[in-house]
Amino acid sequence: MNSTTVIGLGPMGRAIAATLVRAGHQVTVWNRTAGRAGGLVGVTIAPTPDAAVAAGDLVLLSLTDYGAMYDVLGSTGLSRKVLVNLGSGTPDESRAAAAWARERDAGFLTGGIMVPPPLVGQAGAYAFYSGPSDLFREHEPTLRAIGDTRYLGADPGLAQLLYQAHLDVFLTALAGLLHGTALVTSAGVPAEDFLPDAMRLLTDLPAMVGDGADLAAELAAGEYPGDLSTVRMMGATAVHIAETSVAAGVDAAVPNAVRSLYDRAVAAGLATRDWTALYDIVRNPS
Amino acid sequence: MNSTTVIGLGPMGRAIAATLVRAGHQVTVWNRTAGRAGGLVGVTIAPTPDAAVAAGDLVLLSLTDYGAMYDVLGSTGLSRKVLVNLGSGTPDESRAAAAWARERDAGFLTGGIMVPPPLVGQAGAYAFYSGPSDLFREHEPTLRAIGDTRYLGADPGLAQLLYQAHLDVFLTALAGLLHGTALVTSAGVPAEDFLPDAMRLLTDLPAMVGDGADLAAELAAGEYPGDLSTVRMMGATAVHIAETSVAAGVDAAVPNAVRSLYDRAVAAGLATRDWTALYDIVRNPS
Ligand SMILES: NC(=O)c1ccc[n+]([C@@H]2O[C@H](COP(=O)([O-])OP(=O)(O)OC[C@H]3O[C@@H](n4cnc5c(N)ncnc54)[C@H](OP(=O)(O)O)[C@@H]3O)[C@@H](O)[C@H]2O)c1
Ligand SMILES: NC(=O)c1ccc[n+]([C@@H]2O[C@H](COP(=O)([O-])OP(=O)(O)OC[C@H]3O[C@@H](n4cnc5c(N)ncnc54)[C@H](OP(=O)(O)O)[C@@H]3O)[C@@H](O)[C@H]2O)c1
Repeated sequence: MNSTTVIGLGPMGRAIAATLVRAGHQVTVWNRTAGRAGGLVGVTIAPTPDAAVAAGDLVLLSLTDYGAMYDVLGSTGLSRKVLVNLGSGTPDESRAAAAWARERDAGFLTGGIMVPPPLVGQAGAYAFYSGPSDLFREHEPTLRAIGDTRYLGADPGLAQLLYQAHLDVFLTALAGLLHGTALVTSAGVPAEDFLPDAMRLLTDLPAMVGDGADLAAELAAGEYPGDLSTVRMMGATAVHIAETSVAAGVDAAVPNAVRSLYDRAVAAGLATRDWTALYDIVRNPS
Repeated sequence: MNSTTVIGLGPMGRAIAATLVRAGHQVTVWNRTAGRAGGLVGVTIAPTPDAAVAAGDLVLLSLTDYGAMYDVLGSTGLSRKVLVNLGSGTPDESRAAAAWARERDAGFLTGGIMVPPPLVGQAGAYAFYSGPSDLFREHEPTLRAIGDTRYLGADPGLAQLLYQAHLDVFLTALAGLLHGTALVTSAGVPAEDFLPDAMRLLTDLPAMVGDGADLAAELAAGEYPGDLSTVRMMGATAVHIAETSVAAGVDAAVPNAVRSLYDRAVAAGLATRDWTALYDIVRNPS
């Protein structure tokens, strides 16, 4: 029986711990605020981070950010332990953390779980990992309980790069959904008359802009032929969305930022190209 | 046989004209730049806006914005004509345009087509309309050729409000896809290794945040219980995305705007609520 420690019992840490218990692991947990293990069946609650680390062959960190890892483990002996930081951070923070762990004679993997807590351990769940390949191979059987594993390479920053890029798409889309809802409700149209269609617009995106492979090929080619939805047309609409927001008294930060991409694309002479030409502005803003 | 005029032959106007021809209408077209009717079978090309307006019982405008309508029709007699402006504008611009048309003794409907040109006239295509209900009912059989019609009421601003709110969701999501791609390619990961998954993340959104009806109910209730994905957790990630962008030399306007929503939500004491609590910041930014 493998013995695994989970540090951090937010919604995600709780889901990870429960999934590992179901998979037959001996699970020890610790959380800064006591009582967060309530309702978790079959786990051992460690009294201190030291005790939690000592109990596990593998130590999974499910904390808000990398700062929390230093707060929790800063004065804990880590020699010959293997840490997997499943929390969010920048790629540079992941690299610095790997060096920090090395100095403490600990192995270090970084991971990013690509599903919300209720889907952890379910079919379709997956997570990115990076760090030393031997460490990853050794602990993959445990990590696999969380979801399919996608190993990206030795650079500890890679898993967080891919995690952040996906969350970028996710958080941006969610902000758009909330903002569109605020626009319609400001005029008395109920959210329920808008959100199901708006959600369908996102789930139907491939019918409108091609699947991801099409889009990737278009971006890689960098030609953006303007025979369907031009920067000019989409940019005019971006202006209308921003102006509608201001008139409605709804926050304009996100629509103004989107608009600024189109404004800059027009200024760069891309008005008659496909909207995908915005990519040139995004990747090379100066 | 109905005689319909289409003014504006961008990608959308061309799709509308072709669809009406297929539906058996007599179609007259005009476009500012000559030659844009090339390849359109069965249409009559009018030499001037006056001739185009004179030829149609119904005049459909498919122009970049409302400014273009004034440029094209500013000195054209419109008495007893019915215009349907299918171009993008703010709700206020639609209302001003309806008044302008009324002064010229013309009927005026506003519309927003919810699919890209290749899907016009296809199953699943739909468009929002608003304006006088008798006018709408009279011309609905023609408009139905474009796609299903959703009539929203007499206020000429309503169709544009709903159109802009949907396009808000669409343009914001597309900006997120391009931005996430720029992040991964900045580190040498090819777009094709990212975009299919990122697109699936959007098409799987209902599995993660519920379908639109769930979300609408949560926003309408305004309680945002924080047991899955809190403002604190998502906000930390928003910071990491913005910082990763800066480190990668990728434009940070959109991620900074998204981050600012989370920062303000944290400052408003919403850190332990669900991410949907951002809605309170978006709809009431002050
Ligand atoms: N929830 C999701 O939907 C989801 C999905 C995919 C990935 N993730 C990632 O998984 C990680 C955990 O997610 P979560 O939702 O469980 O996060 P969370 O609610 O923000 O909290 C995680 C844990 O971090 C602890 N923590 C934060 N700052 C600390 C500090 N300075 N010192 C000690 N402990 C600290 C909290 O302890 P206290 O209880 O004492 O505050 C909490 O138990 C995050 O990095 C997130 O990006 C989450
Ligand atoms: N394309 C789409 O994916 C799509 C989807 C849904 C809705 N829509 C909406 O449908 C409308 C038309 O779309 P589109 O893609 O065909 O737009 P577009 O490419 O921007 O052009 C539409 C037409 O507007 C004309 N125009 C622009 N400014 C003018 C001016 N000042 N005077 C005279 N003519 C002017 C252009 O004439 P020239 O040829 O002379 O430049 C062009 O024929 C837009 O409002 C758009 O928001 C488009």
